[in-house]
Amino acid sequence: MSESNLLIVEPKKFSFNEVFKLESGEKLNGFEVVYETYGELNKQKSNAILICHALSGNHHAAGVYSKEDIKPGWWNELIGPDKAFDTNKYFIVSLNNLGGCHGSSGPNSINPETNQEFGAEFPIVTVSDWVNSQNLLREELKIDKWLSVAGGSLGGMQALQWAIEFPDKLSKAIVIAAAPKLSTQNIAFNEVARQSIISDPDFEKGDAHPQKGLGLARMLGHITYLSEESMKNKFGRDLKKEKLGYDYDVEFEIESYLRYQGANFSKTFNAHTYLLMTKALDYFDPARMNDGIFAKTLENSLCSFLIISFKSDWRFPPERSKEIVDALIEAEKKVSYLNIDSIQGHDSFLMKNDRYENAIKSFLKSDV
Amino acid sequence: MSESNLLIVEPKKFSFNEVFKLESGEKLNGFEVVYETYGELNKQKSNAILICHALSGNHHAAGVYSKEDIKPGWWNELIGPDKAFDTNKYFIVSLNNLGGCHGSSGPNSINPETNQEFGAEFPIVTVSDWVNSQNLLREELKIDKWLSVAGGSLGGMQALQWAIEFPDKLSKAIVIAAAPKLSTQNIAFNEVARQSIISDPDFEKGDAHPQKGLGLARMLGHITYLSEESMKNKFGRDLKKEKLGYDYDVEFEIESYLRYQGANFSKTFNAHTYLLMTKALDYFDPARMNDGIFAKTLENSLCSFLIISFKSDWRFPPERSKEIVDALIEAEKKVSYLNIDSIQGHDSFLMKNDRYENAIKSFLKSDV
Repeated sequence: MSESNLLIVEPKKFSFNEVFKLESGEKLNGFEVVYETYGELNKQKSNAILICHALSGNHHAAGVYSKEDIKPGWWNELIGPDKAFDTNKYFIVSLNNLGGCHGSSGPNSINPETNQEFGAEFPIVTVSDWVNSQNLLREELKIDKWLSVAGGSLGGMQALQWAIEFPDKLSKAIVIAAAPKLSTQNIAFNEVARQSIISDPDFEKGDAHPQKGLGLARMLGHITYLSEESMKNKFGRDLKKEKLGYDYDVEFEIESYLRYQGANFSKTFNAHTYLLMTKALDYFDPARMNDGIFAKTLENSLCSFLIISFKSDWRFPPERSKEIVDALIEAEKKVSYLNIDSIQGHDSFLMKNDRYENAIKSFLKSDV
Repeated sequence: MSESNLLIVEPKKFSFNEVFKLESGEKLNGFEVVYETYGELNKQKSNAILICHALSGNHHAAGVYSKEDIKPGWWNELIGPDKAFDTNKYFIVSLNNLGGCHGSSGPNSINPETNQEFGAEFPIVTVSDWVNSQNLLREELKIDKWLSVAGGSLGGMQALQWAIEFPDKLSKAIVIAAAPKLSTQNIAFNEVARQSIISDPDFEKGDAHPQKGLGLARMLGHITYLSEESMKNKFGRDLKKEKLGYDYDVEFEIESYLRYQGANFSKTFNAHTYLLMTKALDYFDPARMNDGIFAKTLENSLCSFLIISFKSDWRFPPERSKEIVDALIEAEKKVSYLNIDSIQGHDSFLMKNDRYENAIKSFLKSDV
C-alpha cells in the first residue's frame, strides 16, 4: 500500500451479559461483539456513524493493524481522512455481526454452556437480531443517536432495518446496492451455495472449513458479485496455458481465479457463518409484517434516506433499489437516489468512485 | 399428454467402424450413434433437416415411444405435423452426440479395447468433432445436402459449425439462443458446475451419478436457464411450509424445486457426459482460427442463416446473437434475425411461441 495516511486501528470488545432473545424464539445467554472505531466522537456525540457489513465482511472496515500490515479493512476506500466517511469529521463504528467468525459470538466461539465451539449449534440470526445487538452496542458507547447507519448489500438491509426498528436512533440511513427482500433468483443462488457446503462430507464430519463445499459457494458468489463486463475485461477468454489441453486442468484464467478465490476463502471463513449469513439474507423481508406493503412498514421511520445502486450490479440491480425508493416516496419520507455508472457489478459498492464519494459526503453534511 | 397426433418413434443406430480422429488429437476406434427420424425423406432427398441438441439433450427430440409413453421428446413443441419443423413436409434427423449418455458412444458405453465402460477415459470431444460425426451419419443416410441444420444453445453452435466446415452440405442454418463463443461468465458457471462434480467424493470413487455434485451442477444450470421474471412468477418467495422454520430444511418453494431437479437429473444423466458437454461449450470459438475475426471464419459458408434470440435469455442474451448477425453481415451472408419476446429465459427456445414457429416455418419454406 502506498497510502501513507492509513489509520492504525485496534479491535475492541463489547460483552452483553444478559439473555438476548432472537427473532426465531431461540436465545443467547449473553454475547460478545468485536468492533472497531475510526475518528473521534465529538462532545455532543452527534457525529457517530455505524457501518454494517455484508455477507463475508467483518468489523475491520478501515485502516491497518500496524505499519507492517499491508491489508487494510474492506471499506478502506471509503473510510478515512477526507474520504466519503471522513474520519476527520466523524466517529465511525464498525462491528462483526452476531454469527460472524471474526471475533463476535458465532459458530467459532465457545458456547459457555458446553465449553465447546458452537458450530452448527449457533442459532439462526436475522437482520433484526443484528440491529438489536447493534443497538445494545450503541447504548454501551453512550451514543444517543447515530448521525447515520450505512452499509452495502446485506449491510444496506441493516441500515433499512434500523430505520424501521429504531426510528429515533438515527438521522440518516445510507442503503447501498441492496434490496427490500431477496428475489427468487437470489434465494436460488443462496440455496446452491448452502447445498454445496452441506453436502460436502468434510463439513458433515465437522470440518468448519470444508475446502470443496465452501470453495464452491465462494466461486459461485464471486460470479454474482462481478459484472459480465468486468469479468470480460479482467480475464476474457485468456488461457492459463499456452494452448488448449483437452483435459480438466485449469485452462482459462477465469477458472484459475475462481479456484484460487474459493480455496483461499475456505481457509479463513467459517462454513457455519456462511450458512447463517445466507439465511439472514433469505429471511429479510420487512414488508412481510404488513402483507407485503413496504411503504406501510416504513411509515414510522424518521430519518432521511440515501439510496445508491450501480448500473452493472445484477445481484441487486438498480430496479431493486428503486423498489425501496418507491416505497419511501409512498410513505412520504425524505429520500435521495443515485444510480451510479460503474462496470464492476455488485462489487462496485466496495470501490472508490467520485460520484459515489461525493454523494455520501454531501448527504452526511446536509441538514435533516 | 392430451395431444392425439403424437408421432410414435423408434431409435436407430449408426455404426462407424473406422478410426475417427478427434480435434484433440485423440482417436476413437469407431463409434456408434443413436438417432431418430421424423417424417419421410422425399425422392429428391431435398427435405432433410438435422436437429442438434444442447447440453443435456439427446436424440429423442419428438414423439413418444408408445401410446402409453407420456413423455414426448425435448423439442416436441416444435417438431411434428404442422409444427415449426413440419413432419408432413420434412424429414427430420436427430441424434445423440458423441460423448452423450443416451445410446451413442460415450462415457457409459463399452470401450471395445477394455470391455469396460469408458467412464473418465472417454476423450474430450468438440463441436467440430460432433459436426464431423454428424456428417458421417449424413453420408450413411445418403443425403447429399441438408435442407437445414438447426439447434438451440449448444445445438445452435453446431449449426454454425456446419456452415463453417461443410458449406456445401446445408442450405439453411437455424441458430437459436446461441453465441459465437462463451463469455467469461459462461465459462465461470461451467467451471463451478465441473468443480461441484469433480469434488464429489462419490464421483472420485467412480460413481457416474454422484447425487450431490451432479445435482448441484444441475441446480446451478437451472438458475441460468430461467429468467429472473419467470422464476418470480413461478415460485416468488412462496414458502413450502406454513411459516419460517429458522433451520436448513427446505423453506422456500424455489429450494424445493431446485433440489428435486438436481436429485432427479443425477439419477438419469452421466456425470462424465456433463463434464464433456461443458468442455465442448468452453472450447467452441470458431473465430479462433482467424485471430478472433469471426467474419473471416464465416467467409466460405454458403447457406442462408436464421438467427433467433429471446429477450429474457441471460445465459446467451440477444447481444450474443447480434454478434453472430454482425459477423454474417460483415461476411456478406444472407441472414435474418429475430429477437423474440418471451419471459422464459434461455429455456424459451424449447417452448412454443407463434412468432418463433412462424419464423422457422417461413425460413424453411423460403427460396435460398
